[in-house]
This record gives sequence, structure tokens and C-alpha cells, in this order.
Amino acid sequence: MPNKEIPYKIYLEESEMPKAWYNVRADMKNKPAPLLNPGTGQPMTAEELGGVFCDELVKQELDNDNAYIEIPEEIRNFYKMYRPSPLVRAYCLEEKLQTPAKIYYKFEGNNTSGSHKLNSAIAQAYYAKKQGLKGVTTETGAGQWGTALSMACSYLGLDCKVFMVKVSYEQKPFRREVMRTYGASVTPSPSMDTEVGRKILEEFPGTNGSLGCAISEAVEVAVKSEGYRYVLGSVLNQVLLHQSVIGLETMAALKKYDIKPDMIIGCAGGGSNLGGLISPFMGEKLRGEADYRIIAVEPASCPSFTRGKYAYDFCDTGKVCPLAKMYTLGSGFIPAPNHAGGLRYHGMSSILSQLYDDGLMEARSVKQTDVFAAAEEFARVEGILPAPESSHAIRAAIDEALKCKETGEEKTIVFGLTGTGYFDMYAYEAFHDGKMTNYIPSDEEIAASLAKLPQV
Amino acid sequence: MPNKEIPYKIYLEESEMPKAWYNVRADMKNKPAPLLNPGTGQPMTAEELGGVFCDELVKQELDNDNAYIEIPEEIRNFYKMYRPSPLVRAYCLEEKLQTPAKIYYKFEGNNTSGSHKLNSAIAQAYYAKKQGLKGVTTETGAGQWGTALSMACSYLGLDCKVFMVKVSYEQKPFRREVMRTYGASVTPSPSMDTEVGRKILEEFPGTNGSLGCAISEAVEVAVKSEGYRYVLGSVLNQVLLHQSVIGLETMAALKKYDIKPDMIIGCAGGGSNLGGLISPFMGEKLRGEADYRIIAVEPASCPSFTRGKYAYDFCDTGKVCPLAKMYTLGSGFIPAPNHAGGLRYHGMSSILSQLYDDGLMEARSVKQTDVFAAAEEFARVEGILPAPESSHAIRAAIDEALKCKETGEEKTIVFGLTGTGYFDMYAYEAFHDGKMTNYIPSDEEIAASLAKLPQV
Repeated sequence: MPNKEIPYKIYLEESEMPKAWYNVRADMKNKPAPLLNPGTGQPMTAEELGGVFCDELVKQELDNDNAYIEIPEEIRNFYKMYRPSPLVRAYCLEEKLQTPAKIYYKFEGNNTSGSHKLNSAIAQAYYAKKQGLKGVTTETGAGQWGTALSMACSYLGLDCKVFMVKVSYEQKPFRREVMRTYGASVTPSPSMDTEVGRKILEEFPGTNGSLGCAISEAVEVAVKSEGYRYVLGSVLNQVLLHQSVIGLETMAALKKYDIKPDMIIGCAGGGSNLGGLISPFMGEKLRGEADYRIIAVEPASCPSFTRGKYAYDFCDTGKVCPLAKMYTLGSGFIPAPNHAGGLRYHGMSSILSQLYDDGLMEARSVKQTDVFAAAEEFARVEGILPAPESSHAIRAAIDEALKCKETGEEKTIVFGLTGTGYFDMYAYEAFHDGKMTNYIPSDEEIAASLAKLPQV
Repeated sequence: MPNKEIPYKIYLEESEMPKAWYNVRADMKNKPAPLLNPGTGQPMTAEELGGVFCDELVKQELDNDNAYIEIPEEIRNFYKMYRPSPLVRAYCLEEKLQTPAKIYYKFEGNNTSGSHKLNSAIAQAYYAKKQGLKGVTTETGAGQWGTALSMACSYLGLDCKVFMVKVSYEQKPFRREVMRTYGASVTPSPSMDTEVGRKILEEFPGTNGSLGCAISEAVEVAVKSEGYRYVLGSVLNQVLLHQSVIGLETMAALKKYDIKPDMIIGCAGGGSNLGGLISPFMGEKLRGEADYRIIAVEPASCPSFTRGKYAYDFCDTGKVCPLAKMYTLGSGFIPAPNHAGGLRYHGMSSILSQLYDDGLMEARSVKQTDVFAAAEEFARVEGILPAPESSHAIRAAIDEALKCKETGEEKTIVFGLTGTGYFDMYAYEAFHDGKMTNYIPSDEEIAASLAKLPQV
């Protein structure tokens, strides 16, 4: 039975919540490569970025030096609506697995957006508001980011235009309705509303869309509309900065009970959750104060870390964005529509890409059906029905706990449970009915996509 | 801006969680009327009830004397998976309404069943397991109770057969999938699987079903199957007992910050949430230690308190259950299918009925469109997308807060936010599209239904 000394859920006091975000770039010896202007091949300047992003966010995007950036009080107050999030000791899962491992998860799903995305949405909306803008545009895949941004914009009275990847728009009509509850407009992407959308539809009629397409459309609308800027829920340095609140709270909760993790596991799409969760731990590792195994888990259908290339690439399909150096499958790569979760992005955060390239973290890919098996096992004992995205981390955490069972090692595993799967029941249904399949891109498919990387 | 002394969310420590449920009947001068055997007109004996319910639950059902009943350790451990639930100070709603009132809500939606129903589901499943049963049967309306019971049964390894009101089964396919994730079987009611279901379908072909029908079917299967008992998510004394954990935590959280509420507001269908929330406050009131306004809020489409009669009635449409004395619209009353939420039950907990009849609490009914307007207003500032059921209480809380704005009174309002509306997006969609209507039964309709009350 559970060790009574450590509660099932560790909650920080509101007074213990972080007052500043942690910027891991400050402690990186090899800084992440800068964004490049695709026309000149030169690093993007603050002025150039300012046409797309809010000024304060551009500053954060380019800041490789300041380790801590204060969280404005208004954002901290918003955080208090759903934070601190609990760090949960998975006593029931441990018992089910009969493992000597100690498993903890940081649960970010206790808010209506259903995920950690709200942490950066409120920050980005706040700076847009502060700059006196009318509204923001964005893309969303599975829908969590769009929902989160809608909530933040509604709270601050900003207009919110969301381009939603077509396959998700159709598979998740309820997500659209949640966004409407918060007053956002939602357009399936690719759409006929933008130049880039029309071009993509012409080239690939019947496409299911991709995050890369939706980004191009949202950026186009932002750049062409007076008083609008574009905001993005993942990949960018600023997003990882905001998401560091996850890792900071996790670290504070662990330290409160003198728990030292052996490994930190997170799912990885564009890197927002993983980057946020690991940042302060990576900081200790970079400063030589502690060592941790850090494991990124990605879908086998969209394996940018494990099968991609570390190179400069476009962030979007329409090639309207700057170039970023990252592990990428090529900006033309579109994951199979049978892939249920988010984590559909062709690239990866530049920060995480650099850390991975420097050997500071590991990565692995997992198959969709194995992910849902882990999700169901977890749901039945821990009581939370997890998002498919989060379940990639569950899969890896269970696998590591089972290894401990074999070896008898009492390792401490921390993973990020980014959200809930309440809007993913079609995927669960397919899994229950044995109709879920696994798509793994061929080497040829990936090579063909990578052959189109830009020359820098 | 928010008063910094009281946090946004008051969480108790796990060590502060209740170790015993509170049985309000012990403090009632006028005890709730006993269940009657419809054949003999005599109070049901423990032996008679034992054919339908687990033995330990029969004991709890009949116990009018013991004020505290210990919560077994296994149940307390399960509670720790999702409790203590937060008591939230609605700072943002107060600011939006510009009211001097102080608003708190006890939020029970942070678990996969999405509501407070899990509090009693685990207790009932636990006693079934302890008695060595194979499984349990039940009915579910909106689906929260069925989901909660599926989760509890899956955790304990019990079989779970759910009869789901047909209109909800069709409107909420995702709920069914959640129950399947937890291994339950789900049948739309009325069904051809039971005698009573066949009879109801013959009499009312094309019926949308009702909780009363579904109860009859679930009871029939329990009574006719070896090793099965029936469990119910509302109305019964035992359910209010288990749900007292809501009120006990609420009271402990308030006392921790020296907050004295003026009124306690809860939505009322069968009474499980309302009864649980108010129990300890009503206890203080009954013992003369404190006074509170206690307000039940019910849908105008199913107004048992405000337009029903206090009389003995059948608990179910098929008349296979004992008679209960309660505020009722008649066991043949079936609310209009356009009514979105749960709260569709024709009767009301005997305990609450007696308290209401004794003038110890108030009741009011609210219209569906007003409820959804309150839901959306709440969602936009408090960040939680509420269940339609819970939104009845939100409506009343907002109305009371607006009265305070007029009078300038700084009243303290506590309401129960029973759950989230993630599986109710069709209803939200109808509301957004202006397609939601209000159904209010005519006096003739209610009189006709009440004319069929049994003679006792």
C-alpha cells in the first residue's frame, strides 16, 4: 500500500508558484541556432519579427541571456485559475505494474482547454493586449492550443481567429464548439480564405491538412490584417519559456518532499510541453548541479527526432515563415490521417533540437496502438482518461517502470501528463473496435521529403 | 483586484479530508419517511431491500441515528485520486458582475467521470465487492453516473451493466465510449432486454426514455441475475450520505479561512449533489448552531420541488421499486427531450423533500436558455466549461450576486459546481445557434401525471 508520507497529489501553495519563467537558453553553452530570413539567409532581426509577432514576444524570442523573466502579475492571477497543477504520485499504477519504480506525473489537464497550452496562450494574449492589438491569429491541430488561445482571448477581450487542421476539424467538432463558446472564429485548413491555402488545395486537392499548412494561413492573415499578430502554441523559444512554469512547479513540488528523479519523460510534437517540463532540470544538468535522464517520446508516424535531420527548414508548408534549425522531416511532410493525436508537426523546437544534438537528452518513437494500450491501462487505475498526445509519455513511463521490475531498481520516474482525452473518443472507439492501425513512414518517404530541404 | 488573503483555490491537505461521512438524518427532528413495500404498504425491511441492494448499503439506507459513519480506508485512498476537490473563490466572476458579493464554488469536475458522482460510485462498488458480488447494474441519464460507476467497477474488478436513457445514449455517444474504456456494457433504455423495457416500448413506442424507465430495467436485471445487485446514483439516503464528503470538505475549507456563508446553492435532480453539499450546513442549522439560506435550483422543464406534490410515489416508471415519499411529478412524468441536462428525474430525495417541507430550504426553477447564458458567462471568466446541470446553480448564484449589486450587500454565496460540460457540446451548439428552446410543462400535464399517484 501507498507510502503515507508522500501524498497522492502534491499541490504547491499559491505563494509557492513561480514568479518568473526560466529561460534555459541562458545556461546553454551551444545556443539554439537563430531564425533565418529565407530571402537573405541572415538571422531575423527584431524589426523583421515584429511584423509577425508582438514586440514583447520578439524580445523573449531573441533573448538567449536572461535566465529569469518575470511573469507579469496579471498572468500570474490568470494562472491561479487553474494552477498550481498537481504533481501526482501514481501509487495505483505502480501497484498495478508491480514495479519498484516510483512514478510521478505532472498533470496539466485540469482546465477547460484540457492541456498545458493555456500557460503560453495567456502570456501571448496578454502581450498582444498590452501592445494595443485588436486580435491574434493562430493554427491548431488537435484543438488544445486553439481552445486555450480562445479562452485567453475571451478573458482579455481580444479577437481570435483559428485555422484548424482539417482532419481535426472534422474529427473533433466539439472542440470547435468549445472555441465558439469562448467567442473564437474557427476555419478548417487548408481553406480558400488565404492565398497559401488556395495554392495548397490546388497542389494537393483532398488533403487532410497539416500544422504546417495551417501555420502558413494564420501567418498570412496576421500579416495582412491591421492590428493583428500571429501567435504559435509550440516550437518557438518564447513558448518553451512560458511553459517552463510546468517544470518549475514540478521541481518545487519534488524538492518539497526531497524527491530526486532519475528520469524525466515527456511527449514531443513541437516541444512545448517537453521543453517546459524539462527546462529547470536541464538547467541543473547544464550547470553541472545534477544529472537526469531526459527522454522525448514521439509518434512513430511523425518521428522528427528519431528519423529526421538536424538542418535549417521552413516552419510551415507554405514557406511564409522564417527558417529554423531543427530536427525535421521536411516542411512538406504530412503525417497519415489515421494518426489520432496532435504531435503532427514536421519539425521540433530549436532549443530541444540543439540539446538533443549535444547528447543532453534521448528520444524514442512509439506506435499508436501501443500508445492507446498504455492510455487505457493508465485510465483504469489512475482515473484520468489521458489525451493521445500525453499517452506517448505514459507508454514510455510504463516501459521504464517495467524495466525496473525486471532489474529490481527503485528508479524515480517523472513524466508530463499534458492533458485529457475527452475530445478524442473517436480514436478510443477505433482502438476498442480493433480498427486502429499504425502508420510508419517508409525510409523513401522521409528521404523524399528531406531532399526538399532549403539550401542555406 | 482580488483580496490576496484568500487564495483562488482552497485545497485541503489530504490529512484534512473527512474520515467519516455525515448522516444528516441523525439531526433531523422529522425523519424522512421510510420506503414502503408497494404490495403491503408497510416499511421495507432490511431483508426485502437486501434482494436489490448490497447488505452494507441497506444498513446505511435505514440508519436514521448515527451521525457519522466511517469511510473505509480503501475508499479514502480512492478519494485521494481526485479529492480533496478545490473550493474556488470566483474572483473573476465577481469582478465581471461588479458585485460586492463574495462567491465560492466547490468544483467536483476534476475527474474523468466529470462530476461528483464518483464519490458514491466508489462507495457502492466497494461494498458490492466486499460482499463478494460479481457485478452491479444501474441506470444513467446524462452519463456522469454511468461513467463514475464504470470507473469504480474497473478499479475494483467488478462487472458493470449500465442502462442509459435513450435520448442521452444518442446525444452523447462519447460518454458511452468512456464507459467502454472502463470496461462497462451500455444498453440504451428502454430496451428489449427486459420485461419492463418491452412493456414500456409497447405502450410508448418511440419514447426517448427517462431515468424512471432505466431504473426499472436495471433493477429487473439485478434481481434476476445471480451475484448482481442494483446501485443508484441519486435519490437514496445512502447516496446523500456518501456525497456528504462534498459538504464536509466545503465546510472545512471555509472554516480554515474563517468564511461564513450566507447562502448555499445547489442544482437538484434527484438530490445527490445538493444533499451532499448542504448536509453539514443543514446539520448546524438543525442543531441551532448556525443559520444559512439553502437554495435548490431545478429545471423549469422538470420542476419537482416547485410544482410537484409531497406524496408517496414509485421511484421508477415500471413500478418495480419500493414507494418513496418525496416531492414528485408522478412516476409517469417524462421531461421533454429538448431538455439538455440531467436533472430529469420525476422525484426528489426523501431527505431533501422532508427538509423542504419543514421550511428548512428554498427551491426555485430556471429556464434552459437562462441556464446556458449563465454557463457561457461563467466559462468565459472562470475558465471552466460547466455541465448544464451545474449551470442551474450558476444561474441562481449569479442572480443572487446581482441582487447584492443592487442592494450593496456583501453576502457570501457558496454554490456547488458539480461537473464539466465537455460531453454536452451539442447542447452548447444549439444554444450558440439560437436553436435551444424552453419547455415548461403545462398545469394540465402535471395534474394528469399526479392523478396517477399510488394510493397509500
